[in-house]
Amino acid sequence: MPSKLKVGVLGATGTVGQRFILQLANHPEFELHALGASSSSAGKTYADAVAGRWKQQKPIPDNVKNMQVLECLVDGFRQCDVVFSGLDSGPAATIEPALREADLRVFSNAKNYRMDPLCPLVVPLVNPDHFNIIPKQRASLKPSPKNGFIITNANCSTTGIVVPLKALQEAFGPLDKIFVSTMQAISGAGYPGVSSFDIMDNVVPYISGEEEKIESETRKILGALSSDASAFEDHAVTVTAHCNRVPVVDGHTECVSVSFQRRPPPSVEEVKEALRNYTCEAQKLGVHSAPKVAITVHDAPDRPQPRLDRDNQDGAGVDVGRVRACPMLDIKILILPHPLCFSCCDSGMAGQFVVLSNNVMIGAATSSVMNAEIALAKGFLN
Amino acid sequence: MPSKLKVGVLGATGTVGQRFILQLANHPEFELHALGASSSSAGKTYADAVAGRWKQQKPIPDNVKNMQVLECLVDGFRQCDVVFSGLDSGPAATIEPALREADLRVFSNAKNYRMDPLCPLVVPLVNPDHFNIIPKQRASLKPSPKNGFIITNANCSTTGIVVPLKALQEAFGPLDKIFVSTMQAISGAGYPGVSSFDIMDNVVPYISGEEEKIESETRKILGALSSDASAFEDHAVTVTAHCNRVPVVDGHTECVSVSFQRRPPPSVEEVKEALRNYTCEAQKLGVHSAPKVAITVHDAPDRPQPRLDRDNQDGAGVDVGRVRACPMLDIKILILPHPLCFSCCDSGMAGQFVVLSNNVMIGAATSSVMNAEIALAKGFLN
Amino acid sequence: MPSKLKVGVLGATGTVGQRFILQLANHPEFELHALGASSSSAGKTYADAVAGRWKQQKPIPDNVKNMQVLECLVDGFRQCDVVFSGLDSGPAATIEPALREADLRVFSNAKNYRMDPLCPLVVPLVNPDHFNIIPKQRASLKPSPKNGFIITNANCSTTGIVVPLKALQEAFGPLDKIFVSTMQAISGAGYPGVSSFDIMDNVVPYISGEEEKIESETRKILGALSSDASAFEDHAVTVTAHCNRVPVVDGHTECVSVSFQRRPPPSVEEVKEALRNYTCEAQKLGVHSAPKVAITVHDAPDRPQPRLDRDNQDGAGVDVGRVRACPMLDIKILILPHPLCFSCCDSGMAGQFVVLSNNVMIGAATSSVMNAEIALAKGFLN
Amino acid sequence: MPSKLKVGVLGATGTVGQRFILQLANHPEFELHALGASSSSAGKTYADAVAGRWKQQKPIPDNVKNMQVLECLVDGFRQCDVVFSGLDSGPAATIEPALREADLRVFSNAKNYRMDPLCPLVVPLVNPDHFNIIPKQRASLKPSPKNGFIITNANCSTTGIVVPLKALQEAFGPLDKIFVSTMQAISGAGYPGVSSFDIMDNVVPYISGEEEKIESETRKILGALSSDASAFEDHAVTVTAHCNRVPVVDGHTECVSVSFQRRPPPSVEEVKEALRNYTCEAQKLGVHSAPKVAITVHDAPDRPQPRLDRDNQDGAGVDVGRVRACPMLDIKILILPHPLCFSCCDSGMAGQFVVLSNNVMIGAATSSVMNAEIALAKGFLN
Repeated sequence: MPSKLKVGVLGATGTVGQRFILQLANHPEFELHALGASSSSAGKTYADAVAGRWKQQKPIPDNVKNMQVLECLVDGFRQCDVVFSGLDSGPAATIEPALREADLRVFSNAKNYRMDPLCPLVVPLVNPDHFNIIPKQRASLKPSPKNGFIITNANCSTTGIVVPLKALQEAFGPLDKIFVSTMQAISGAGYPGVSSFDIMDNVVPYISGEEEKIESETRKILGALSSDASAFEDHAVTVTAHCNRVPVVDGHTECVSVSFQRRPPPSVEEVKEALRNYTCEAQKLGVHSAPKVAITVHDAPDRPQPRLDRDNQDGAGVDVGRVRACPMLDIKILILPHPLCFSCCDSGMAGQFVVLSNNVMIGAATSSVMNAEIALAKGFLN
Repeated sequence: MPSKLKVGVLGATGTVGQRFILQLANHPEFELHALGASSSSAGKTYADAVAGRWKQQKPIPDNVKNMQVLECLVDGFRQCDVVFSGLDSGPAATIEPALREADLRVFSNAKNYRMDPLCPLVVPLVNPDHFNIIPKQRASLKPSPKNGFIITNANCSTTGIVVPLKALQEAFGPLDKIFVSTMQAISGAGYPGVSSFDIMDNVVPYISGEEEKIESETRKILGALSSDASAFEDHAVTVTAHCNRVPVVDGHTECVSVSFQRRPPPSVEEVKEALRNYTCEAQKLGVHSAPKVAITVHDAPDRPQPRLDRDNQDGAGVDVGRVRACPMLDIKILILPHPLCFSCCDSGMAGQFVVLSNNVMIGAATSSVMNAEIALAKGFLN
Repeated sequence: MPSKLKVGVLGATGTVGQRFILQLANHPEFELHALGASSSSAGKTYADAVAGRWKQQKPIPDNVKNMQVLECLVDGFRQCDVVFSGLDSGPAATIEPALREADLRVFSNAKNYRMDPLCPLVVPLVNPDHFNIIPKQRASLKPSPKNGFIITNANCSTTGIVVPLKALQEAFGPLDKIFVSTMQAISGAGYPGVSSFDIMDNVVPYISGEEEKIESETRKILGALSSDASAFEDHAVTVTAHCNRVPVVDGHTECVSVSFQRRPPPSVEEVKEALRNYTCEAQKLGVHSAPKVAITVHDAPDRPQPRLDRDNQDGAGVDVGRVRACPMLDIKILILPHPLCFSCCDSGMAGQFVVLSNNVMIGAATSSVMNAEIALAKGFLN
Repeated sequence: MPSKLKVGVLGATGTVGQRFILQLANHPEFELHALGASSSSAGKTYADAVAGRWKQQKPIPDNVKNMQVLECLVDGFRQCDVVFSGLDSGPAATIEPALREADLRVFSNAKNYRMDPLCPLVVPLVNPDHFNIIPKQRASLKPSPKNGFIITNANCSTTGIVVPLKALQEAFGPLDKIFVSTMQAISGAGYPGVSSFDIMDNVVPYISGEEEKIESETRKILGALSSDASAFEDHAVTVTAHCNRVPVVDGHTECVSVSFQRRPPPSVEEVKEALRNYTCEAQKLGVHSAPKVAITVHDAPDRPQPRLDRDNQDGAGVDVGRVRACPMLDIKILILPHPLCFSCCDSGMAGQFVVLSNNVMIGAATSSVMNAEIALAKGFLN
């Protein structure tokens, strides 16, 4: 049995960090080695540092309780094979590039590098082939790190839609137009996040920056890497989004209409079959956190629903339903992504869109961890 | 002071009927004369008939408590100048045409006659000119009634969007495409309506028949009456809808993208101005329930919100916000209609989309009552 | 390996019945043999019979989908070693005694026999010694069944409080007074149960019959069986209850003040220790559904909370917190029972107080099933 | 017509302050003269200072929008006849006594002086006779102010119960024991207050300091002033409280059991009659904000409910229901206080327990304002 890779977590006491802890405390390939948090937490045990702030349904893992929390400085993380960052964009802006410069591999949930032309923006069920730009990312830096890199996750509402859209793109060729209207859960805004006074018996029809992220990130994630792996080529699809916060604890629901360049477009039945048949690279590689079924397609007219379906596949997939013809574009569908991403809102509030964790007995699949697993399987962590 | 018109209410003990009672108990032009309900209620006082089922925040009006409830048969309503029907489509199917045949004027909330080619489908802030088909409706019947007619309301989610769309159509000419995604309140499903087990911490992404109604009713309401007032001409706009139920008590929120036939399209500022300037015929006629401001346009990026804005204008208008350019169509907007319609769900559940009534000191404006007020002002009730 | 006992489920398509199905589909000692439902379901496969009504987060077990549903008549259940009844009190009134008369063993969730002087009312973590009245129950019948009996569960809000109260009674002797104020989840009312219009942004301060049940059932459950096992002797404690429905999906929260006959009363620390040390007979017997920890005692001042703690111990225990001195009685505590009972509301709505099932990987412990396990372990099913 | 009294508001931009603004902008006897807030708001117009933080359903009153906000220093408030303080206990600790020292009259919502032996703790529907200690309060200060004083409000959950308890005390003599269990709305915690992540689908069974406040404040408020008006004499009643936060926007619900010293105790019918007949001094004086009915008594078994009844009497009263015999004490009742107090939580979060304001057409009655009205009517502001 090979020894596990040593991993560090930045922002370990926040909402995203707590999820990393649960995810990594008993991982078959990774071992928690260093936990970083703000200077007020540094020096305390992890249990003391999160006292009164641990908001997970599972308790703090026993093997983590007494780990000593460090400051988020390069020195404490030098021996890590992988560093996961649950930091907000503010602190992430300095420490993440410093770690890369120190030749460390960073899997980041912050928004800072997502749209960087040499930084992979990877949803693990969709585009791990984008990892191949890493040599070019390294080459662009002076001095060029031997091992170091930054890989980012997508925003949570983007993550949800690109999985089925990728399946459709693979099956039917280029997409033309995408309309998306979201109903996002409060856990996406982290803790304390949304005031109960703002959301109870209410809808907040605005999430700062969210619509723009869906529009730009979707084009990058569905885009190709150039044949020499030196640049990303956006998918030329028109995307328009309406984003809303609704009084749901966990599980974003997204209404999507989509059209294809191909004429005639695929039928409703062909679309359902393509979604059902989609198999992603994470599944083919058999990585630890990959779902058995990437896209669960519902036939019942009123499914998926967040409370009933968000824990399907232990949270590592996407539910799709209500596939039907659209009078304006080609096809209408409803998408319920699962808790596979940590990164959610970067406007000062660390968060993630499904924090329900009582169900994650074997460990919730998350984008960052799955990305690292894929990177490991593909040799990027040698 | 002229004597008030005698009005009857069918389905007076249901959710819609209770709203009619509150609306009409102290109306300056109408006087409650006959209350109809199921045979199990007939013969009781109104207070006894609704005991345990009165779900309004205002108490039963004192002058109604002791009125005797009748069966919904023609005989009890012969002396009514106007009959409002809060019946479901089942019982409405027989009694409404029977009343018309008996020369009575019926303002109906049921769906049965909405798409009838000779029946006006009127949102009072939008298309009261459609009343002009009444002579043709009468002429089509054998024997032709002298006074009788049926006028219908729109479905509640349609009502919300057609007000601002009418304003845009008036200002900028024909619409081309409309995308709408709704987040509808539970009060729209009547009582008991939606089980708490289905909607708490959840979204139900399906309301039976709702998307089809929005698509067809919008075209009829925004359409014109032929120059000889003999037929409706649908507005040739493509409409696509995604309808969802969310855990909000009152107030439907609707995300809309719209495009115009006119090129170039109007700017965001021109659209906002057109919405702000919209004045409807109900306002010009000065009828009792007309709002002061038909469309309230918000500049704050996160408004309107149902809990904060649903009672604006005592419920007799529409709030609009988030007017912005759409990357796919021309303009995106957010619409929050107010409680101006009674008719909501006809699938066996009487209901209405805003049942909040504590705020309705002077009386909630409702489509049916406002329609009748307009009909009175325009001479249709002589 | 001995063959499994054949079990039947009455009311198999209802909310309680669905829980029985999940509980029993892969049980180590029981095997589903017969499923009974209303005559409209009889003859269909189970999957067809519950189509559109299956409201569990786990799917219908594959080995149950194609079982044929029977009517709830004695003939179809004659070969069952055990029959679980999820029926409402109406149909239960005739079929349950008929099954007993046909020599079958019935574990019932209906209220009909709970206060019967010869019928055990058993919370499995509290008073399985009450099973010993079974010979007397049989002897009282003419003809006397050889194997048949009826054993009942308690109401869900009673179940919650009697576990810690039993622990206190064991440790400190007779209780004197109990004040309980409940905040009960909507799932306790079954499906469709509570209208969302009644409970959203609201509290319903009344649950028909609930306060009386807590007051009478508590005295019976905490009472003793006479030395000759011929009669129950109520525990002479004064109980007063205020019952409320709150907008929580799963998990009843109960505020309790209690006083002891013993002077001086135990200290707060002694009470916490007694609760922590409580071990019930189900644990000692090691039955399949028994919790590892019967009572989890919290030190954090704001715990337990239903959303965070209801799935502790896979639902087969009770959480207690906020143990503190009471200025009026002796001790105040907060109790959060887990989903260990099926029986909840018998006022025409089958239900149970925790329907959350995503957590029930190994199988939710339930009163009925655990009662049957204990009865098996103690030889009552030979 | 006499000129209006000039009033100031401290903490004018917070949740409590916003309510003061709505309350006082069009008051018949008071005129807004000075608005105080933090130094970051000082110098701005009121509209600018609350931009993005105004969370009321009514808009900012036009006559307030352009008032300039001051710092909370004595100088800016010297010309005020009355100063209302919506400050948290921290800033209140220095400015409130400084204002009194400068001979100003302060009506405070902070907790600092509530239990001060010379400071009136007044619920306007209960104990305005406690104002009579003011001369003694002044005399105790060196130098003794001629006009200045501090009068405080009660905590919101206390306010609710003391109104009906006062009615019972007046009718039946001294109370003996009071058990109260609360289900408090989120608006009681101010804004942003309770995180949605903490309260959605949940109960938080703990509100810091709340139980102690109910226990001590109730004894003071129901107590008498000594015959020489020099000291308060607590009512010797035993009070025990369990306080909970529930997912309700507005309206605290409180379950109460109470016993009397008098034997035999009054009957259920006598209690209901005493509650119905209660008339408070505010009503007798006819002050502007007094309710018509102080205590509304419900006969329906499931009322009052917060969503349906919280706006009764424009919020200036208390609803009581479920009056019944208690197996342990004498009488059980359910209490739903209305929005008549501003002061709620002083643990760093300004707030109040009913912030619903769309219903307050004439102006919400609040404890502070009603206290000032009573003080005016009784000559304390001369």
